[in-house]
Amino acid sequence: MPSYRADLLSDTLTAPTQGMRAAMAGAEVGDDVFGEDPTVRALEERVATLLGHEAGLFTPTGSMANQLGVRVHCQPGEELLSDSLAHVVRAELGAAAVLSGVTSRTWSAPRGLLDPVAPLSMVVTGVGPYQVCTSLVCVENTHNFGGGTVQPLSALRAVRAATEREGVAMHLDGARLWNAHVASGVPLADYGDCADTVSVCLSKGLGAPVGSVLVGSADAVAEARVWRKRLGGGMRQVGILAAAGLWALDHHIERLADDHDRARRAAQACAEAAPGCVDPATVETNIVVLDAAAVGWEAPAFVAALAEAGVRGYAVSPTAVRLVWHLDVDEAATSYAVDVLTATLAAGTRRR
Amino acid sequence: MPSYRADLLSDTLTAPTQGMRAAMAGAEVGDDVFGEDPTVRALEERVATLLGHEAGLFTPTGSMANQLGVRVHCQPGEELLSDSLAHVVRAELGAAAVLSGVTSRTWSAPRGLLDPVAPLSMVVTGVGPYQVCTSLVCVENTHNFGGGTVQPLSALRAVRAATEREGVAMHLDGARLWNAHVASGVPLADYGDCADTVSVCLSKGLGAPVGSVLVGSADAVAEARVWRKRLGGGMRQVGILAAAGLWALDHHIERLADDHDRARRAAQACAEAAPGCVDPATVETNIVVLDAAAVGWEAPAFVAALAEAGVRGYAVSPTAVRLVWHLDVDEAATSYAVDVLTATLAAGTRRR
Amino acid sequence: MPSYRADLLSDTLTAPTQGMRAAMAGAEVGDDVFGEDPTVRALEERVATLLGHEAGLFTPTGSMANQLGVRVHCQPGEELLSDSLAHVVRAELGAAAVLSGVTSRTWSAPRGLLDPVAPLSMVVTGVGPYQVCTSLVCVENTHNFGGGTVQPLSALRAVRAATEREGVAMHLDGARLWNAHVASGVPLADYGDCADTVSVCLSKGLGAPVGSVLVGSADAVAEARVWRKRLGGGMRQVGILAAAGLWALDHHIERLADDHDRARRAAQACAEAAPGCVDPATVETNIVVLDAAAVGWEAPAFVAALAEAGVRGYAVSPTAVRLVWHLDVDEAATSYAVDVLTATLAAGTRRR
Amino acid sequence: MPSYRADLLSDTLTAPTQGMRAAMAGAEVGDDVFGEDPTVRALEERVATLLGHEAGLFTPTGSMANQLGVRVHCQPGEELLSDSLAHVVRAELGAAAVLSGVTSRTWSAPRGLLDPVAPLSMVVTGVGPYQVCTSLVCVENTHNFGGGTVQPLSALRAVRAATEREGVAMHLDGARLWNAHVASGVPLADYGDCADTVSVCLSKGLGAPVGSVLVGSADAVAEARVWRKRLGGGMRQVGILAAAGLWALDHHIERLADDHDRARRAAQACAEAAPGCVDPATVETNIVVLDAAAVGWEAPAFVAALAEAGVRGYAVSPTAVRLVWHLDVDEAATSYAVDVLTATLAAGTRRR
Repeated sequence: MPSYRADLLSDTLTAPTQGMRAAMAGAEVGDDVFGEDPTVRALEERVATLLGHEAGLFTPTGSMANQLGVRVHCQPGEELLSDSLAHVVRAELGAAAVLSGVTSRTWSAPRGLLDPVAPLSMVVTGVGPYQVCTSLVCVENTHNFGGGTVQPLSALRAVRAATEREGVAMHLDGARLWNAHVASGVPLADYGDCADTVSVCLSKGLGAPVGSVLVGSADAVAEARVWRKRLGGGMRQVGILAAAGLWALDHHIERLADDHDRARRAAQACAEAAPGCVDPATVETNIVVLDAAAVGWEAPAFVAALAEAGVRGYAVSPTAVRLVWHLDVDEAATSYAVDVLTATLAAGTRRR
Repeated sequence: MPSYRADLLSDTLTAPTQGMRAAMAGAEVGDDVFGEDPTVRALEERVATLLGHEAGLFTPTGSMANQLGVRVHCQPGEELLSDSLAHVVRAELGAAAVLSGVTSRTWSAPRGLLDPVAPLSMVVTGVGPYQVCTSLVCVENTHNFGGGTVQPLSALRAVRAATEREGVAMHLDGARLWNAHVASGVPLADYGDCADTVSVCLSKGLGAPVGSVLVGSADAVAEARVWRKRLGGGMRQVGILAAAGLWALDHHIERLADDHDRARRAAQACAEAAPGCVDPATVETNIVVLDAAAVGWEAPAFVAALAEAGVRGYAVSPTAVRLVWHLDVDEAATSYAVDVLTATLAAGTRRR
Repeated sequence: MPSYRADLLSDTLTAPTQGMRAAMAGAEVGDDVFGEDPTVRALEERVATLLGHEAGLFTPTGSMANQLGVRVHCQPGEELLSDSLAHVVRAELGAAAVLSGVTSRTWSAPRGLLDPVAPLSMVVTGVGPYQVCTSLVCVENTHNFGGGTVQPLSALRAVRAATEREGVAMHLDGARLWNAHVASGVPLADYGDCADTVSVCLSKGLGAPVGSVLVGSADAVAEARVWRKRLGGGMRQVGILAAAGLWALDHHIERLADDHDRARRAAQACAEAAPGCVDPATVETNIVVLDAAAVGWEAPAFVAALAEAGVRGYAVSPTAVRLVWHLDVDEAATSYAVDVLTATLAAGTRRR
Repeated sequence: MPSYRADLLSDTLTAPTQGMRAAMAGAEVGDDVFGEDPTVRALEERVATLLGHEAGLFTPTGSMANQLGVRVHCQPGEELLSDSLAHVVRAELGAAAVLSGVTSRTWSAPRGLLDPVAPLSMVVTGVGPYQVCTSLVCVENTHNFGGGTVQPLSALRAVRAATEREGVAMHLDGARLWNAHVASGVPLADYGDCADTVSVCLSKGLGAPVGSVLVGSADAVAEARVWRKRLGGGMRQVGILAAAGLWALDHHIERLADDHDRARRAAQACAEAAPGCVDPATVETNIVVLDAAAVGWEAPAFVAALAEAGVRGYAVSPTAVRLVWHLDVDEAATSYAVDVLTATLAAGTRRR
């Protein structure tokens, strides 16, 4: 397995801590397919409460949580709308179409930032049997491919109000909603109030090994539970994993602020070393996207140069490199990464 | 059944002419499921030749022709890209997702006009198993919901060249390609050369009662033939309908210029009667879209006022009204429609 | 195109008669997507009335009519039950799974004859989210691959009563229901009374070039109409084809008795020429299935030998050959076919 | 959560042992979506080796493992064949149709016992574009709803040889293959040799909390890996769960013999107490199915009576009750269960 002094590939990489491992080892469990795992129930109820929804459902991945959100709101042949870089349309392998027969249209959103007007301008309802009917608007907060962008609560509320008037449901992909909450100070329940269903991940910034939770109305979650089984996600003594999620909720939310600080610090250092590669003001959470091309690097070559020095990043396109801070990147690793990044960027600048 | 002095609802309304009816009545036929209908074969070969492709396939509708084009280029979980008003994503009831498990993302295109850069900026290939792979770009010419917009050959060629470099296929929704050809003078084969598959409709401007043709490589058409049967489109002695299509190709292409003249004449009269309701320069073919809201009308009320006077239009949105010229709207009907339109628009203007 | 003195490949081969062609040429038509084709409406109403149902829907094929029947009764993930040789599971290219996400289980039925007990023994309802829920039982009458078998009304009624008790819907694939009606004397409405939806074909024994009709409740047909469009089956001035269907209903039902007589006569001659190749008592309608293997022939070789003599049959398996009588096989063609069949069978017997 | 002195509901109920919990707590992990979890890799390789296949894939459930097996062998519109009580068609909520567009036909199999002839009699290949093509035969060993039936190796080999000749793939649902192996003494690799893909569960008899493994060729597993992500089954540090699986392979295979002994002992006692309720000779592994109806009980009432006495069973139909032995039902619990079962059965007999 690869080993790096600073592994900034993704916040999905986090290994469980000792405390979390102990929590898993001691978890009380039962058969969750029969609804008899007390630890899963506790996690589902806790997340639902945090987000102000009636019920929750544990899923093996955030993708499945999102796709169950899509499924409960859309019938085959209906459409969801999202921005064109949203995880639900970009990184779930076409699941909405394959699993649910749901089609999609997208609006353009620089940095993934929610435009409060764009979604509604595309909504089509009440057109009878001739045109596709919009059933769902999906919003992502923070926005992964947009670079960890925090969606303004006012924009979320504006979209929510407009879609409600049209009878269109709203799903919030909150894989990194914890980061948005910590960065903005907006209560989780205020975010939760902006959507009919919300997915949150325990396995990214929070550091649990596996698992996500979908929350929504009791009816929506009951339907999602059946579809979870149909998709092959109905696990047994999964309280083992839920225990890690509960531990993470207790111990790993507030510390996300450290990840944000480190990411911003790195962005500032990069901007100084190679002006134009990133605007630090856009680094709101734990993700930094560098415009490698703007400073003389092709993204894959830049990533290779970093790797040689023990720092792992991800070429999200031929021109851009993503760096993600998380539980397993501490102060020392950050300092080391900053040194490598600035030196490598400077080398690129010299080459031009 | 409703009757109007000028029925501008859609060019799908055209009734077969006497010559066309005679051609149908006398058609030589066979069982096309077994490949034994000589008239269907003749039509398929003729359209393929016109568009410079190897083979053709008769389908009951343009929607099915488009969806077969999608199916032969995309596997489940892959994506197609189109503009956000394209028929394939707006008006085929989500079929790409339902029938083929194909997801979609869209770019914005005012008037449906093809931006030669937008498609490629969204193409994603070679991203392995983590992101959705783009397999197909769909372009519509003329663009229906865009108002009969003719796509510039240079833009089509630019997109074609770029997608070919990326290994992405291209499908041309040519439901009204005949109109583009007549309006622009571009040979059909030049349009055909810009795509891997092309669908054309015989039942719109050309005036046949039923039918479309998909053209492409022999392999693509062979696969489409199997999927046509799976979708329930494998008809028997369908040479009856193909005969109407052949008649239309012989008699109804050049006359589309009359429809275009009449549409433009009506647009000019409307623009004079109510400045701001339409820019006649944008009326390139047989479709006029009036911005009713800009001149004091809600679209449904405007349509109702027209209907009372014997003219039928279509409220494509709460603010816009579409009027379509075709084989069954002659000089007299056009003059009548122009009188009604200008009078109704003037009434709206007075009310403001 | 091939030409045979007796073409017994299928009753789908029938060419429209002169009267039927005249009816098509003179048909009053409109745009059926907008519900404005009077001839289609007349046909849909007439077939619905014949079968005692509320509403009807014209479709391009019997496969589409069946699949719409499946779709309106089943949600994705539910199941239909049928016998293992039914057209809906054998010859529609998996459409129930592809188009509707509907799974199937099958019972075994020699000659396709409906066992009144088998379907219900497989029905599973009320098992909650752990097992597949049965939503639909499909029955075929006459049974195509079974050899034109007429289903006993008592068996249909028994299955109907049992499934109704369980809340399971019933669809009757009546592609050749006209043949069952003529052979048994059972009124069409009595058959219609045994199912929630019924499909009938105009393009097989009745001799129309294209088209089928699905009948059911007004609600079911309204939903099927939307799905017809989604599948690409929403045609325009399709009254041209409906006119042929109306003509067929007026002129071609009673004459099916001739097809039945000829088929039975041929079967008797075959049984005499090569005892064991067919039991004439099983030839109830227009289909004869010969057990070629039982009399010294491999099915493909037997078909080839027939073809050389100007008679076309179909090897439905390595051992069995199907012969179908229809509108275009008259007395003279039948006599000729019988001569060829008996001579060819005799040759096989001699070789053993 | 319910508590029973003997919980015979299912072998999915098993809670992880202390040793297994310790193994999980100490597992070395990585991000398995990037292929970097060493414990998952070790488990996948070990199971593949045990079954004599090239590669393995960890999945959250046996349903997902089965459905990935279906997906890699079948394209949309193709069919799988199985017996009518197989888990893949009865208990996976129609997933083959929903996820893969795969249709199914079934043969009847008393006790789920594999008839070596039935599958092949239903296989249809080489029928071109008119009929459904059979791509896969699924066999289940042991057979769950059949009562834990062990499939004879000779039957598996006969089906394997026949399907190979026809170019049809074979998938073995080995959720309880460990039980078959222990009961029959047949090496796992001999079973593995009978199929192109095999699924095995770690969470049933083996007692791991979560997880299954699909094995097959390297190509099949690579394709399944992509589809696992599409279905939402691509988890992160899932080595936590894989560690439990490895522990189970080390410690819990041979002890399945105890479950089998206890099940058989219970069956014998039941047969003596209420002759006709079960033939002990059919109890080959850890599952006992009692014919409650044959001895004066409706299944739900019998299950309720057991529950009152602290024994949990499962009414698999209105007439039959399933009892399953597993890791958490020891000698004492078995003795207690036998006492309750015999007393309850005797009460039923007295009532008659």
